[in-house]
Amino acid sequence: MPTFQTVRGMRDLLPEEAEILNFVICKARETAELYGYKEVITPVVEPYELLSAKSGEEIRNRMFAFKDLGNRTVALRPEFTASIARLATTALKNEPKPLRTLSIGSVYRYDEPQRGRYREFWQSDFEVIGSNKPEADAEIILLTDNLMKTAGLRNYAFKIGHIGVIRGILSQENVDDKVQNAVLQRMDKKEYDEAFNILNPRISQTLQGLVGLKSNNAFETVEKMKAHVKDFGEAAAAADNLSEILKLVTESGCEIETVDPGFGRGLEYYTGMIFEVYIPELDIALGGGGRYDRLIEVFGGEPTPATGVAHGLDRIALAMQMQKTVPKSEQKKRVAVVPVREEMKSEALRIAQKLREAGISVEFEVMGRKMAKALEDADRRRLDYAVIVGERELKQGTVVIRDLAKREQTVVAITKLLEKIRG
Amino acid sequence: MPTFQTVRGMRDLLPEEAEILNFVICKARETAELYGYKEVITPVVEPYELLSAKSGEEIRNRMFAFKDLGNRTVALRPEFTASIARLATTALKNEPKPLRTLSIGSVYRYDEPQRGRYREFWQSDFEVIGSNKPEADAEIILLTDNLMKTAGLRNYAFKIGHIGVIRGILSQENVDDKVQNAVLQRMDKKEYDEAFNILNPRISQTLQGLVGLKSNNAFETVEKMKAHVKDFGEAAAAADNLSEILKLVTESGCEIETVDPGFGRGLEYYTGMIFEVYIPELDIALGGGGRYDRLIEVFGGEPTPATGVAHGLDRIALAMQMQKTVPKSEQKKRVAVVPVREEMKSEALRIAQKLREAGISVEFEVMGRKMAKALEDADRRRLDYAVIVGERELKQGTVVIRDLAKREQTVVAITKLLEKIRG
Repeated sequence: MPTFQTVRGMRDLLPEEAEILNFVICKARETAELYGYKEVITPVVEPYELLSAKSGEEIRNRMFAFKDLGNRTVALRPEFTASIARLATTALKNEPKPLRTLSIGSVYRYDEPQRGRYREFWQSDFEVIGSNKPEADAEIILLTDNLMKTAGLRNYAFKIGHIGVIRGILSQENVDDKVQNAVLQRMDKKEYDEAFNILNPRISQTLQGLVGLKSNNAFETVEKMKAHVKDFGEAAAAADNLSEILKLVTESGCEIETVDPGFGRGLEYYTGMIFEVYIPELDIALGGGGRYDRLIEVFGGEPTPATGVAHGLDRIALAMQMQKTVPKSEQKKRVAVVPVREEMKSEALRIAQKLREAGISVEFEVMGRKMAKALEDADRRRLDYAVIVGERELKQGTVVIRDLAKREQTVVAITKLLEKIRG
Repeated sequence: MPTFQTVRGMRDLLPEEAEILNFVICKARETAELYGYKEVITPVVEPYELLSAKSGEEIRNRMFAFKDLGNRTVALRPEFTASIARLATTALKNEPKPLRTLSIGSVYRYDEPQRGRYREFWQSDFEVIGSNKPEADAEIILLTDNLMKTAGLRNYAFKIGHIGVIRGILSQENVDDKVQNAVLQRMDKKEYDEAFNILNPRISQTLQGLVGLKSNNAFETVEKMKAHVKDFGEAAAAADNLSEILKLVTESGCEIETVDPGFGRGLEYYTGMIFEVYIPELDIALGGGGRYDRLIEVFGGEPTPATGVAHGLDRIALAMQMQKTVPKSEQKKRVAVVPVREEMKSEALRIAQKLREAGISVEFEVMGRKMAKALEDADRRRLDYAVIVGERELKQGTVVIRDLAKREQTVVAITKLLEKIRG
């Protein structure tokens, strides 16, 4: 039988990589605690109907969907928001608002694999449910800033836009929802010509003008947006909303690099502010989110405003490697315990257990190797000490301890062993 | 559109449940560190061929298998061992032995849902690859004992057996592998009559005698096993091996309750010692594992002995709830920050950010509620303090802080706020 490989687009994380991902997960949990988000765990496998309800064509076509043995059409979640919206209409329906949730786990999309993009990837997802206020939108940007900062990332930049401005123009011109979705989908891919071709020239011109306002002077751009859409009631209100969010975020110490009025994002359910965060070294977003005020009613709940963000945890891990901000893992003392002969195994195991009870990491010699080989191996693993359990020493209540870095060994009483290891 | 439910057999873990599961995950990681196991992360989706290679009929028929968009037959992992065996023959092929790995994550089996048994569940999986010694088998039992103990569980009991004893008898009687697997499968379900019917009367009688030796006097049972199989070379060696493992484990301070010579376990790849751990309150195992010396060569690697264990993390969480050993989560100080009026929002957010920088958990008022409502909500959430940001106080560099438990409020300088909250 041949050697097996992972499924195309999936990958293994070896110990060093797994450690970095776990570090980022830890920072996401710390961020959640600081901002009052409670973790929930939802299934990887969800009803296809739930996941496809408002995700948009783009994601729908890239889902891992299949029938389970009970002939249910299910899929691997491509993101968390649908699951959280489900929770908000079922088990967490009666929770006081705002409801703030954190989800951490793997999600699945059948994308073409490239650097930083896999078919299985990890997200931390923060959702605030029940608030229609700009301070809720500001909060999800600020907590993203906190995560980037605590991951040690530098030069990351936020890009912000507002779906409500674009939809506001289209709605006032009676463009139906389906066409609106198609337009936004294409705008998301920056295919502006294809996006606007299907609209009448007047709307097309308005949108082209809007897209052209993109700049890195955030406040100026928003002012221009306001002027540009002043005759479109809903769009004008949306521009005001964007302006207020920008002000709250900036005044809280987080700079917004770019306002992009033509910014789309792939998901169909967005209704308001949307944003993404990037580093210069990678052309894929490390995180992004926005407001989705109509998703929860689609799932049978009361109309409930909501906003949220998902962070690409393995992308952040990659970014940390690229920017060399991976912290050295704090090294606890690590010890090999090696019996000199077969007959000493039980005694040696007992000593190993005592050390573990005291919090020392012990790699017990399970290969039955001769001492020289065992010590060589302990050395290669960069352990701190080898504890050598011999018959003669044992009779005197002692063992030999070898400092593997210094290549020195001494006899020490078993009762003093812990003290010696801790230094 | 109707309210959606989870897929049958899957479930949501709400904050309290998620917290317990995360606590158990944390204990599994601590155990791994104490025993020198390094975490790796493998995909949830694996080639069907890999997962089905040696898992056995039973699990093969209960896998979530499907074709991906590239027409590959894939499945959701029903366990970790196949993935780790794959790693041991590919990316980790040249790592020095013993190779000790930890995996933590969700696994999937299409079982009939019942208490403690879901179609998505969580495992911590420890594998030691490269050692054929009884001390390696002892180690996986001892680390399981450590996990049970640190989860606070009481009255848990180990059951131990040895596949090598059963297979040794069958092999010596030239029963082919396929029939051996069928016999073991049925023995696993305690369908001994059906298991032995397909064998000739002499072997059947030997096995029936073996099964009948089960008892809670571990050392005595093993001695009886040795005597019972003394004429079967391989089986006799296997019984000696079981005896040695039992001795090492017991002498290291972990008691083995039951030796069950007829003990099967569902997975086809086991070749040696197998074990499970139970609590009296639940009739499903909280963990189990054993030796599988021939799996890695099936995957194209060099013949490599290995042993390992998987722990049912959500079952352990359930056991903790049943035995009421769930520790109180250490409560950090949690604070609501509430602006008195719209105009104070930016100032209030800045104060919230300062508190978060100092490690305080802050729930910012994002609902735009009147003060009385906001305070009522903060009270219901059992926050410690509400920080009320008003115009008049701000002008004097102060805010109002309300102790929500004592229902007392005082004016405090912003510069002294942190001190006040920390108490």
